Amino acid sequence: MGDDNTTAILESLRQKYRHIVLDYFHRNTDRAVKEFAEEAFAHHLAVSDIIKIHAELMEDLARQLKIEGRNPDILLDYRLTLIDVIAHLCERYRRCLRDT
Amino acid sequence: MGDDNTTAILESLRQKYRHIVLDYFHRNTDRAVKEFAEEAFAHHLAVSDIIKIHAELMEDLARQLKIEGRNPDILLDYRLTLIDVIAHLCERYRRCLRDT
Repeated sequence: MGDDNTTAILESLRQKYRHIVLDYFHRNTDRAVKEFAEEAFAHHLAVSDIIKIHAELMEDLARQLKIEGRNPDILLDYRLTLIDVIAHLCERYRRCLRDT
Repeated sequence: MGDDNTTAILESLRQKYRHIVLDYFHRNTDRAVKEFAEEAFAHHLAVSDIIKIHAELMEDLARQLKIEGRNPDILLDYRLTLIDVIAHLCERYRRCLRDT
């Protein structure tokens, strides 16, 4: 991945993932997670790309919490969000394979 | 999934997952994770099956730690193991789809 179009796609997914994470323990994100997985699937995204998006976001949020003098350990809970998203993407690939 | 053969496959995977978890922070489990994902892929396992295997194992280990008077919070670290395993399985499905 390297051209402008791919960069734009990744940036869009990064924004969407950020919204999912920030909403995850406050409202129902089922639909947003499904849509994210669908989009990632459409662009044939690798799990490593999603893990990278997650890790960068966690770094950002940890920096923010540190500035506010809060403990960044709560961010570990967002591993559940990552599991949820990857699980949906994996099922999407699996389902497609079954249908081919 | 319901017949005896499937039950045996799931039991075998459950044992292998248990070994991966117990080794995860002590030795290199890359190969074991890859083999587990390969086997799960061969049996067309759903991520929900793996999450179930993980959840049941965590319940077992939590019960054990409780008996020993130890804090089961350390089990949360094994979410990394789950992420690793699902990520490998997802890549396996994705790669196969690319090759079809």
